[in-house]
Amino acid sequence: MKEQLWELILSVRERSPLVHNITNYVVMNNTANALLAIGASPIMAHAAEETDEIVSICQATVINIGTLDQAWIQSMLLAAQSAREKNKPWILDPVGAGASQLRNQTVQLLLQYKPDVIRGNASEILSLANMTGTTKGVDSTNESTEAIQAGRLLNRTYGSTVCISGQTDIILDSSRISYLYNGHPLMQQVTGLGCSATAVCGAFLAIEQDTYIAAVAAMALFSLSGELAQQHAAGPGSLQVELLNKLYNITEDEFFTHLKLDMHEQV
Amino acid sequence: MKEQLWELILSVRERSPLVHNITNYVVMNNTANALLAIGASPIMAHAAEETDEIVSICQATVINIGTLDQAWIQSMLLAAQSAREKNKPWILDPVGAGASQLRNQTVQLLLQYKPDVIRGNASEILSLANMTGTTKGVDSTNESTEAIQAGRLLNRTYGSTVCISGQTDIILDSSRISYLYNGHPLMQQVTGLGCSATAVCGAFLAIEQDTYIAAVAAMALFSLSGELAQQHAAGPGSLQVELLNKLYNITEDEFFTHLKLDMHEQV
Amino acid sequence: MKEQLWELILSVRERSPLVHNITNYVVMNNTANALLAIGASPIMAHAAEETDEIVSICQATVINIGTLDQAWIQSMLLAAQSAREKNKPWILDPVGAGASQLRNQTVQLLLQYKPDVIRGNASEILSLANMTGTTKGVDSTNESTEAIQAGRLLNRTYGSTVCISGQTDIILDSSRISYLYNGHPLMQQVTGLGCSATAVCGAFLAIEQDTYIAAVAAMALFSLSGELAQQHAAGPGSLQVELLNKLYNITEDEFFTHLKLDMHEQV
Repeated sequence: MKEQLWELILSVRERSPLVHNITNYVVMNNTANALLAIGASPIMAHAAEETDEIVSICQATVINIGTLDQAWIQSMLLAAQSAREKNKPWILDPVGAGASQLRNQTVQLLLQYKPDVIRGNASEILSLANMTGTTKGVDSTNESTEAIQAGRLLNRTYGSTVCISGQTDIILDSSRISYLYNGHPLMQQVTGLGCSATAVCGAFLAIEQDTYIAAVAAMALFSLSGELAQQHAAGPGSLQVELLNKLYNITEDEFFTHLKLDMHEQV
Repeated sequence: MKEQLWELILSVRERSPLVHNITNYVVMNNTANALLAIGASPIMAHAAEETDEIVSICQATVINIGTLDQAWIQSMLLAAQSAREKNKPWILDPVGAGASQLRNQTVQLLLQYKPDVIRGNASEILSLANMTGTTKGVDSTNESTEAIQAGRLLNRTYGSTVCISGQTDIILDSSRISYLYNGHPLMQQVTGLGCSATAVCGAFLAIEQDTYIAAVAAMALFSLSGELAQQHAAGPGSLQVELLNKLYNITEDEFFTHLKLDMHEQV
Repeated sequence: MKEQLWELILSVRERSPLVHNITNYVVMNNTANALLAIGASPIMAHAAEETDEIVSICQATVINIGTLDQAWIQSMLLAAQSAREKNKPWILDPVGAGASQLRNQTVQLLLQYKPDVIRGNASEILSLANMTGTTKGVDSTNESTEAIQAGRLLNRTYGSTVCISGQTDIILDSSRISYLYNGHPLMQQVTGLGCSATAVCGAFLAIEQDTYIAAVAAMALFSLSGELAQQHAAGPGSLQVELLNKLYNITEDEFFTHLKLDMHEQV
């Protein structure tokens, strides 16, 4: 399986997919740079008037609600609808879900368009699951188990592959689950690395129809690159720089030597 | 006193306060990273619909008018009002005050909500003082003295602690004044370091009720980190990176050895 | 001629022109930092209400349509009109021209105000030329020749100096053409370096009335700095940092030793 993931990384570099981003102001520069570093071509465009055209010329769309407002929400909804209608993959990053009614309402509207992948932290994934109104009965002995149950509920309801980022990244769909043990705690001291991971997932969705495999490959590349980058970083400022370098120059040998990934067929 | 300041730095790291930012597009990434580097948790949110909820869940609010427009001005006013009503601390960064009528009018509206701290350069602080209409009689032999008189006027009128950034940073309230001699001229070649200093002040306001002490601690940490970072920086690009590293890993020994601060009770 | 270009670089450092930017969200931080690194003073301001005042206090205006929407388009048009009326230089960066009707329509409206310089890649310059409706007869054996013909058409129609960025940067007006062979392919893996080049051109327009010479000097500084920066860069993350360092500390010796520029009077 690791060979398949590495092939996808090479495929992004070779095919340089166009990835449309409606994302938040904080991370626009860094996510565009992350996409360029892995060999993809980012387009950042949010005007409602051009949404349909931009979705059309791109191979995937990334929607991130981090700094939402009414005008941007309208464009996000148009983009999600357009992607669904054109059968183009799209990924949702529900930044801050649970922190305000506006975020919760926006996420619920977006979920109608059945994102191919949802990527968030455990808190955001739990918020989304609670909104579906069917989380009664979710009962768990730890946060990780609870987040997995929330992810399964989202998968059953919307058909989405769900990626739960954390110390261990968890990726699941209806029949498979992966646990990724790469990454480093210092990554949490850099703003928007989760958002960049989402954008990188978008690039892999653009070239791989199996959304679960696309998400696993993207997260493997991203979390491992962060872990390797951290070895050269004196602090969070350097980590941001070294992460972009490593996303660009990670080698096959580094990938196979350091990847710590368990992929399971679920019972 | 230096011991008290260092205790506050440790307290930010330990308590990781949530800091709400309505700030400008240019610096969002860097100010969020500065907050993360010192151990705080930034939330960047500007939609009017969620302002009240976000102010409620945060321990301090930062308002920076750098790239204002009508929609953002409305949210800034709502946030300032909400912070005042909820007795949450907020800090104003009047970027570019004096450069346009729009900025001047916005600042005057915001000042009604009596910011706990105002941080700007001498030109901005003088602009604000001139707007209060009572600066007649301000007469000085140098810009620094003039800015201090302007700061005192703002303190008398709005009750705010005032921080005047420059080669020497000056922090004052009704009975105290501090002179901070750290920093480096290269910091002026990096965009938005003043904005980041304001955000860092916001984090200290979140954990310290004495707004003057909070501002002194924040500026001491920020200007000293910049000075130490510059020693490893070949130019302004590296300085931005090294500053985030140093905000993250500054040690007690570095702080006590290099801090150049005079704190005075005013006559 | 190289001596004249270096004199202009020194002049920007000495005179520190105020440069007004209405640019895209992705690159605001980096373009502001590029302007600071060369010694200029950036002002990022987009509110329609303050456009006229900001254009007035600045020595040049940069308009970049990268993340346009209706509100920003109105401010761009106001700024271009204001610059033209006040006889202040302005430069257009038609990011993504050709990718959507909205971008094409916006560019056509902006071109009415006859930008002093237009800077884009070959694809964008060709899109602009096609919009003028008189490109029939453009016929060429390669993309570079075609882009030059498009640039000449734009120059004849709007009077603008045209800069076509690429592996070789081409700058032309009605009687002159320059070929600049500096730069490095890794620069394409960093987002917004074209946008930063445009902003740097804006700073040179602020201090040099010959718009062709201003554009050549700016592109020489920028592309050469990128090439030299790349020698110290392990990847695109470091390149962004090192580029800002080099824009700040490039020496006369480096400039004269490494500049690869052919300037021609056209037949």
